[in-house]
Formats: sequence, C-alpha cells, structure tokens
Amino acid sequence: MIKVGSVKALLFDVFGTCVDWRGSIIKEGEALNARLKTKTDWAALVDAWRGNYQPSMEKVRAGERPYANLDKLHRETLDTLARKHGLDHLPEAEIADINRMWHRLEPWPDTIGGLSRLKKKYIVAPLSNGNVSLLLNMAKRAGIPWDTILSTEIFRKYKPQPETYLGAVQLLGVAPGEAMMVAAHNSDLAAASALGLRSAFIPRPGEYGPGQKTDLAPERPWDIVAPDFNALADALEC
Amino acid sequence: MIKVGSVKALLFDVFGTCVDWRGSIIKEGEALNARLKTKTDWAALVDAWRGNYQPSMEKVRAGERPYANLDKLHRETLDTLARKHGLDHLPEAEIADINRMWHRLEPWPDTIGGLSRLKKKYIVAPLSNGNVSLLLNMAKRAGIPWDTILSTEIFRKYKPQPETYLGAVQLLGVAPGEAMMVAAHNSDLAAASALGLRSAFIPRPGEYGPGQKTDLAPERPWDIVAPDFNALADALEC
Repeated sequence: MIKVGSVKALLFDVFGTCVDWRGSIIKEGEALNARLKTKTDWAALVDAWRGNYQPSMEKVRAGERPYANLDKLHRETLDTLARKHGLDHLPEAEIADINRMWHRLEPWPDTIGGLSRLKKKYIVAPLSNGNVSLLLNMAKRAGIPWDTILSTEIFRKYKPQPETYLGAVQLLGVAPGEAMMVAAHNSDLAAASALGLRSAFIPRPGEYGPGQKTDLAPERPWDIVAPDFNALADALEC
Repeated sequence: MIKVGSVKALLFDVFGTCVDWRGSIIKEGEALNARLKTKTDWAALVDAWRGNYQPSMEKVRAGERPYANLDKLHRETLDTLARKHGLDHLPEAEIADINRMWHRLEPWPDTIGGLSRLKKKYIVAPLSNGNVSLLLNMAKRAGIPWDTILSTEIFRKYKPQPETYLGAVQLLGVAPGEAMMVAAHNSDLAAASALGLRSAFIPRPGEYGPGQKTDLAPERPWDIVAPDFNALADALEC
C-alpha cells in the first residue's frame, strides 16, 4: 500500500475518468435532432469521432504535423464525419457549436462530490489531452472544483508523451512520487508510473457504452484501485 | 465606456493587485524574529528583495540567461540579502521556508469577495510573473477562487513580454478584446492594452508601504478605474 502521506497532488485524466463523453454527446445530439428535425445516429457518430482520437493525436506525437490542439483535431474529424452523417449542410455556427459539445460534457455522478472531498487535502488538477479552454469551459459549466487546469496543450505534446506528466509535476512544484495519476485507463497509468508517479485506477465500465471490452479491470497492481471518486477519497483518507 | 458584454475573461496581476506582499512578509518575518530571537529589519529586507524583482527578471527577458522561474530568482536575491541581514547562518530548510513566504501572501480585504462575485459571470485567472506552484499554493491557502492559474512560467517569459498576454488569451480560447487585464500597475495595463486587451486599474496605494509614489492614479483613460474588486464587480455588472 502506498504511503498516503507522501502524496501532495492528484492529476486526473478527464475523458472517461471524470466525465461521460459518450453519453453526454448522444444526449446533446438527440436534442439537436429534435430541434433540427434530423435523424442523425449520434451513437455511431460519437463512436467514430472518438475512434479517430488516438490516430489524430498520433500524427502530432509522431511529428508528422506541428502541434494542433484537441479542438482543432476534433473539428477536422467532425468535418469528415459531417459529410458521412449528412450534417455538412449546417451553417458554420452550428458545426462549431457541435464541436464545442466536448466543452459541455457531464461529470459522472460521483465526480464532483469526490473531488470536493479530495481537494481539502490534496491539490486536484486535470491532466488531460483536452485543451485548456475545453477543460475550463467544462469545469465552469459543471462546477468541477479544480485547483488549476493542467492540459497537455501547455506542453504542446499529447499523453502518453513523458513531457506531459513531468511538465505537470514540475509546474506543481512536486516530485513525481508526490503526484498520483488517476485514470480509468491502464495505459495512462502505465506511462505515469514509469516516470515515478503514483497510480489510481477507477474503472468506468460504461465509458464506451454497453459493449465495452477494455479497461474493465486493473492490468497491474496500481497503488489504488477504487470503484469511484468517493472510494478514492476514502482510500486517501479524506 | 467599454461594452461589458464583450468581455469573457478577467486576467489579474497578483503581487500588489490581489495580495499585500509587503505587509504579509513583514508580518511573517516579525513572527520569525520572535521565534528565532533575532532582530532582522523585515521592512528593509522585503523592500530590497522586491527591489531586485524587475532587475532579476530583466536578465531573462533580455536573454542574458535562460528562463528561470520566480521561485529561483527570489531565492538568488534572498541568498544575497541573507548575508547582508545576518540570516545566512540559518539552516537550509529555514532559508527555503523564508523563500516560500511568497507562496503565503495574504489577499487584500476585498480580493476574495470581489473575485467570488466576478467568477459567477466571467472566467477569472491570474496572469502573474509568479510561478504556477507559488500562485497555486497561495490560492489554496488563502481561498482565492481562481478558475485556473495562468502564470508567465507557462510561456517561459515574463510580463510585459507580449507572448505572456497573447499566450494567456489563446489558452483561454478568447480574442484579446474579450479579455481584460486587471492590475494596480499602469505599465502592466499599457502592455496588455497595446495588444488589444481591455484594462481595469485598481489602485493599491499601500502596496509599497507609507512612502509609495508610483501608481497612485491612472496614467491613461483605462476602460475601468475602480477603488477595489467589489467596485470592479459593480462596474462589470456582477
């Protein structure tokens, strides 16, 4: 078990770990269908949209293109999907607003309560591939009580590039071993723990919808495995 | 008068504008004198410490040395002053803690109440030459309710270099004209407004102690001039 006393800062993955991106976008999309009297399959659209998340970032990570933030990558993918899903007739303002659905994702039911407890004892900050304004608008709308917002955009890199984890702990003024990465994804924790950060796995079996097959269980003995943020607060003695 | 509706984000200078650095350090220093049974002149020490603030940053701005954050610059100045003020016999942990007095500065009486009102309608963030951890530790200790912490450390530059103001608005996802710099210093507002940001001047005539001669009044017709953060909230219709 970890020495809880040595941890000062908690870094949170956001998409999937803190917020329900799939459910939120389907819900907003269906409201849009009702308003526009369209029949877009938003489950299919959001799965394809998120399906291009890693490939689009990989081009930046591999140096095949200069850094572009996630709003830009999301928009490029959306422009392709809009044609496929018959949304490309919409005016620019409407397409731009669809892209900003990622700024309006809803937290899981335990997220805000758990973070509020954790914040009393630890620095709490996201460390997400979402850009700063995306994370800020999301937090302000939903009331997510971050102490500050750390985005990989600050480092012009994308997780799991090491500069993102190391840059975050450096800005927070803590040693890697004094920071804990909290994520619903084993790969994120593997990258962070390879650099000396602590690890907490919070499975989110509904993140990818009913058919989810990955990240249902911890793949290594992470420092903490907890079913939600309240259980994480218990484990961290908050 | 400005079109209030166009402003989305407020960026705050911190040292002097939000917090009373001089009074806070004298108060902590006198408590240290009592504990250590020393007679250090903390008013003289803090004035000399702050006196080297601009010169120390200027070496970075001029490219005479690589970027170093404010904790590091503060420490270098302190090491010089410690000899002069007879503190150099103290153990390293004590000197390091004196340097962290800058992480524990106290807000002016109107700061937290005013920011809490402004936060309901606007993004509120510091844009300070203090490093991220300094600003974060200060905010967490004093309860300053920032939406996120922006420091010039993120850009590895120091105000008034243009990259700091432009980098901040870019991360916030707003146009320069949708951001307002709030400062007790005319020079900060001059640099920000030259780049298209809005400006609010909040005089802090006690910042430099009883003999203050600068920044007692606005030197240009800034968009807003208000005596404190509550009056700023009134002017911005919060």
